[in-house]
Amino acid sequence: MSVTAPQGFRAAGVAAGIRPSGSPDVALVRSLPAAVGAALWTANRVQAAPVVVSRRHLAVAEPQAVVINAGTANAATGAAGEADAVATAEAVAAELDLVPEQVLVLSTGVIGVPLPMERMLAGVHAASRSLSVEGGDAAASAILTTDSGPKTAVAEGDGFVVGGMAKGAGMIHPRLATMLAVLTTDYPLAAGEADRFLRPAVEVSFNRISVDGDCSTNDAVVLLANGESGVARTAASDESFAAALTTVCRELARMIVADGEGATVVLEISVAGAASDEQADAIARRVATSPLVKTAAFGRDPNWGRVLAAAGSAPWNDGFAELDPDRLSVSFDGVTVFERGAPTGRVPRLEGTACRVELDLGLGPGTSAYLASDLTYDYVRINAEYTT
Amino acid sequence: MSVTAPQGFRAAGVAAGIRPSGSPDVALVRSLPAAVGAALWTANRVQAAPVVVSRRHLAVAEPQAVVINAGTANAATGAAGEADAVATAEAVAAELDLVPEQVLVLSTGVIGVPLPMERMLAGVHAASRSLSVEGGDAAASAILTTDSGPKTAVAEGDGFVVGGMAKGAGMIHPRLATMLAVLTTDYPLAAGEADRFLRPAVEVSFNRISVDGDCSTNDAVVLLANGESGVARTAASDESFAAALTTVCRELARMIVADGEGATVVLEISVAGAASDEQADAIARRVATSPLVKTAAFGRDPNWGRVLAAAGSAPWNDGFAELDPDRLSVSFDGVTVFERGAPTGRVPRLEGTACRVELDLGLGPGTSAYLASDLTYDYVRINAEYTT
Repeated sequence: MSVTAPQGFRAAGVAAGIRPSGSPDVALVRSLPAAVGAALWTANRVQAAPVVVSRRHLAVAEPQAVVINAGTANAATGAAGEADAVATAEAVAAELDLVPEQVLVLSTGVIGVPLPMERMLAGVHAASRSLSVEGGDAAASAILTTDSGPKTAVAEGDGFVVGGMAKGAGMIHPRLATMLAVLTTDYPLAAGEADRFLRPAVEVSFNRISVDGDCSTNDAVVLLANGESGVARTAASDESFAAALTTVCRELARMIVADGEGATVVLEISVAGAASDEQADAIARRVATSPLVKTAAFGRDPNWGRVLAAAGSAPWNDGFAELDPDRLSVSFDGVTVFERGAPTGRVPRLEGTACRVELDLGLGPGTSAYLASDLTYDYVRINAEYTT
Repeated sequence: MSVTAPQGFRAAGVAAGIRPSGSPDVALVRSLPAAVGAALWTANRVQAAPVVVSRRHLAVAEPQAVVINAGTANAATGAAGEADAVATAEAVAAELDLVPEQVLVLSTGVIGVPLPMERMLAGVHAASRSLSVEGGDAAASAILTTDSGPKTAVAEGDGFVVGGMAKGAGMIHPRLATMLAVLTTDYPLAAGEADRFLRPAVEVSFNRISVDGDCSTNDAVVLLANGESGVARTAASDESFAAALTTVCRELARMIVADGEGATVVLEISVAGAASDEQADAIARRVATSPLVKTAAFGRDPNWGRVLAAAGSAPWNDGFAELDPDRLSVSFDGVTVFERGAPTGRVPRLEGTACRVELDLGLGPGTSAYLASDLTYDYVRINAEYTT
């Protein structure tokens, strides 16, 4: 059900011929009752046309619909690309009786390739006609590129629901990468409130994952809230909504890592005992993006030496984040392999599709956690052969 | 000849049984006349025992000899590892009639494995006995790990010579990685002067390369200068020496990239038109370390979209380095593929073992250049199968 699990949402996914494979490539999500919304965008200095246009729309209107195409990122396409994104929003608005500024446009695919507008507009028309409560899964399929399958999650609160869909694969990194996620809820939020809930949920989910450390031009996470559940808001229900939103974001984020290009294992990296949460973050991120740690994970090698080398070189201001090897301990899947500066001689056996890597710096109260995929032959194959 | 090309240097390389392969694994370099020296060390917070000990030695005495072992990094080995590094320096000092503080100890290999001291001391003894003018190449072979072959360079100035040897392979990154280099010269430098020449040469060579963005616990670049050439120093000869030293560093740095683990192509990344040299650096480094740029290079794909995405997400303070896509141009091997914000439609054919990637940001006078290897199946194979 994904994005149509909460009340009052409709979705569709159609094949418009934008992806050469003929797979579904245009998704549409709308709220029937008036919704409020928020979005977080890629921090990349090179922002795709749909990101530029959608930011502008979000600044002047509450979003009621999101249209997404796969196949081209409509990035680095200049003024023509921007005009195409605007025209797409206008077409959706005309179909759904909205104003264009109420429509957000997202794109994912190859950079530098213009949106084929004839196909895109036909796709918008077809998707608008097939919007339905059952359309959540079709929408989730129509936003994929090199993903191996759709990524959806639903969490139920007391009287309300949060739904979501995402796509990932490559260019996945803390600051948002070729990663799109649309989250919906029937929980009631007032205008301007959605951002306050979305930010912290993204911070501990989509901003804590890494497939390859690359960061794309198109990333976006969008939340629409239409209040259709009719639940009465209290401080407790707000907390429950925040928890449900975080759960959906975390589940989608984990699916993105598990389905990272070529991935065979999810590394669950956690850092404790850092001088501060920020330093713990820097170290967790460095371990999560180290090619040597990631290739060792592919070889199921509990290579704590590489973890140490990565942790010791986590960028922090102009140098490296604080770390004292003599206070440092490292464990793999709960087996301590390095304890306060010395190897323990224990060698855990790594198996399966998840691996916990825990560092305790022994310096302070700071903690952080990241999810990362391994670096494999298939990652190289996919990215050496596929023009993204 | 490598490190024995300048007058007054002797070197040796022997097989002491530290590397399981039985390959040469202990190298020794000494200056016969009194030398002065300098060294630059890894910035990793986890520093190997030989780095800790050698820094201490360099603080109190001018270095006269350098002993290097391959096979174990003697890193994360605690107090015992430090005692082993000290004992190694003492053994060399006893053989060569020096004080231990005049000896620098370098190690490269697997992290967390103690130095097998019986073999190491036998190796020191054998190497001391076989020191010779011809020993430069043997020494260059005895410092290798996953390198495919020795890396040496020599530059001649007016009446003096600079020689050098290096090892690289994996964990190669701007802030010095599992990279060792020993540079020698018969140019006359006074005590304390070597550092002033070494730093700028390393800055534009070893600090501008990337194989995998990883940074090791053992990196070191050492310079010994013994004045044996007897040339008279002038401002012009100093300049000539600085140029020769830079040439040797650059040649060795390029060899390290070309022989990066699994590398098939050297990416020559240059950035011009940045707001400042520092911002140009940040962007060049980001492009040089992007897995998507590096896999595209392996596929000989002139994928400017990935170059743009990487350039746009170069870390700079808490955000990304300044960049305006509408002023940005990108070329591959001299063919402009993206010009001031728009694709040109030209598609260069990438061939051979080098590829120039040039970015002009159109913002200011800042420039930088990096060398990077591509990311290949063999990189994954080597690092998933080999415990470093």
